[in-house]
Amino acid sequence: MEMVDDGIMEKLDLKSLGFESTNDTFRIADFGCSVGPNTFFAVENIMKAVEHKHHAQFNNSAPLSGFQVFFNDVTTNDFNTLFKALHSNEKYFSAGVPGTFFGRLLPRSTLHFAHSSYCLHWLSKVPTEVLDSESPAWNKGSIQCDGLKKEVTKAYSAQFQSDMSTFLEARGQEIVGGGLMVIITGGLPDGVLMSQAGIGMYYDLLGSCLIDMAELGVISEEQLDSFNLPLYYSSSKEIEEIIKANGNFSIERMDSLSHNIWKTSRETKIKVSVTGGRAVFQGLLEDHFGREVAEKTFENFETKLDENFSIIDGAAHEHIDHFILLKRNVN
Amino acid sequence: MEMVDDGIMEKLDLKSLGFESTNDTFRIADFGCSVGPNTFFAVENIMKAVEHKHHAQFNNSAPLSGFQVFFNDVTTNDFNTLFKALHSNEKYFSAGVPGTFFGRLLPRSTLHFAHSSYCLHWLSKVPTEVLDSESPAWNKGSIQCDGLKKEVTKAYSAQFQSDMSTFLEARGQEIVGGGLMVIITGGLPDGVLMSQAGIGMYYDLLGSCLIDMAELGVISEEQLDSFNLPLYYSSSKEIEEIIKANGNFSIERMDSLSHNIWKTSRETKIKVSVTGGRAVFQGLLEDHFGREVAEKTFENFETKLDENFSIIDGAAHEHIDHFILLKRNVN
Repeated sequence: MEMVDDGIMEKLDLKSLGFESTNDTFRIADFGCSVGPNTFFAVENIMKAVEHKHHAQFNNSAPLSGFQVFFNDVTTNDFNTLFKALHSNEKYFSAGVPGTFFGRLLPRSTLHFAHSSYCLHWLSKVPTEVLDSESPAWNKGSIQCDGLKKEVTKAYSAQFQSDMSTFLEARGQEIVGGGLMVIITGGLPDGVLMSQAGIGMYYDLLGSCLIDMAELGVISEEQLDSFNLPLYYSSSKEIEEIIKANGNFSIERMDSLSHNIWKTSRETKIKVSVTGGRAVFQGLLEDHFGREVAEKTFENFETKLDENFSIIDGAAHEHIDHFILLKRNVN
Repeated sequence: MEMVDDGIMEKLDLKSLGFESTNDTFRIADFGCSVGPNTFFAVENIMKAVEHKHHAQFNNSAPLSGFQVFFNDVTTNDFNTLFKALHSNEKYFSAGVPGTFFGRLLPRSTLHFAHSSYCLHWLSKVPTEVLDSESPAWNKGSIQCDGLKKEVTKAYSAQFQSDMSTFLEARGQEIVGGGLMVIITGGLPDGVLMSQAGIGMYYDLLGSCLIDMAELGVISEEQLDSFNLPLYYSSSKEIEEIIKANGNFSIERMDSLSHNIWKTSRETKIKVSVTGGRAVFQGLLEDHFGREVAEKTFENFETKLDENFSIIDGAAHEHIDHFILLKRNVN
């Protein structure tokens, strides 16, 4: 939140956006909003910072007409829950925008500020090669881009590049010249492989539970091999190159945030890890393997996590969060 | 649809709205959209007519940049269902706007076309006087504004006037000068009382089923007396006066549409009447009387409708639909 505040104070020029003379509404969008409440904290923080900057820039001589917020997520997102939570305490005009953010969602040059938090490490699809037994990029025996096989990493990286470029192109059309975008997304420190980071070990452990299911004959080898996580943790260099190649935005700030050390009991950590894993991945597993297998897998996962937690918790490396502040170029 | 087409062709001046020189997006909102598909037919018809008018006015010399549609309904509306239906075939940018239309929902001067169909005969609340045993407007023995008691009609009419004014004021702020609004809402022909129209008889019959419940002791007298339908069927004169008093809009067209004669079997008519009644009123009854009473009431209603259908079907009078085309005054 502080980094967003600073970014708005330092990099948002409300004068060049025309807010001194027009009483246009300041329009914000959150791409990948889920059902709240995190999205509300994020957009309310942005609004506070914009008001602050507005005061600093014009000293109340110009009116700030108000805000309109577009909450975007996929069509299957539970917008009913989002809207019910939203309306308990609303100080802005709001709208839900259903649809994939890997495509246009809003009219041209209508957004002043875009935000996307913890979404862009999700790919639009698993790269086809990694599920193809004929391909050198076949990811046999793993459910993720663990970084151990060059061809697999290359396929995942290419998919990430394609998705990210599509995202930047769509947002480039929607954001006005001089408008800002904050992207927060999962990544890896330079030179660290996914399989060396705690989170990669966590996914590998989940994968091992699916391998168990195949060995028990609960699922077939084919079912197992046709499943991979559509996730990619990029390096900052990779992201930087994609943004520069796209050309719509200038990079105003780029930081790697490391995770806080998690000071709580081992039991709580395991509980939260399982609950979090279920929240994020159970639907994905149910879609591929059915409800029963997903449930069994997570029961097994809970046991295995308990047995192996010290390895994951004590991993030498951790993933990072990329914090990226972009400004839309004026054409 | 034809009347909307004609209204757009005759009354929408895209030149004065600036669409010759800007490539602004044409923004449409449907207030009270429900879950589809009617709202999709309505807005797609509007878009087709605007494109048609655009071609007629500029002969392709100016580009029409596209459309953004805001689908509005109350926060408890099932937007998930709306969004899933929407995305099967979308040619425009769309957004859901949750919240009551008796209040502001969109930024100032951002709408070019507003639409509201079969919603504004629903009041924001039952007028308090009609539920108050101390008031001369107490509506003892009836669940609707049947038109038989002057004080009751006055209370309902005042609530309608207040709600309609609030609606016109909010839309007046949201619609750009020169923008259009189509309102379609239930009404009564001049001089016809609700209790004389088929639909009023239908509501009276539903009311009689609730009176039966009270007589059987299933619900208390107090529960019965504290229930009225928040519905008001206005006369065209009444609506006209409210629009003129509000002053934001000029009336470009106002028509009374009578209902088509319904050529189908008696059985089908009864079935559709009960199904329709459940769809619209069961939730309202459940909220007030609980699920079980609502169910019993509708079972009784089905029987009574069968017994009394010839009276309702043969009513000398029918309600009408007001079709109103308004243009936002340029300030």
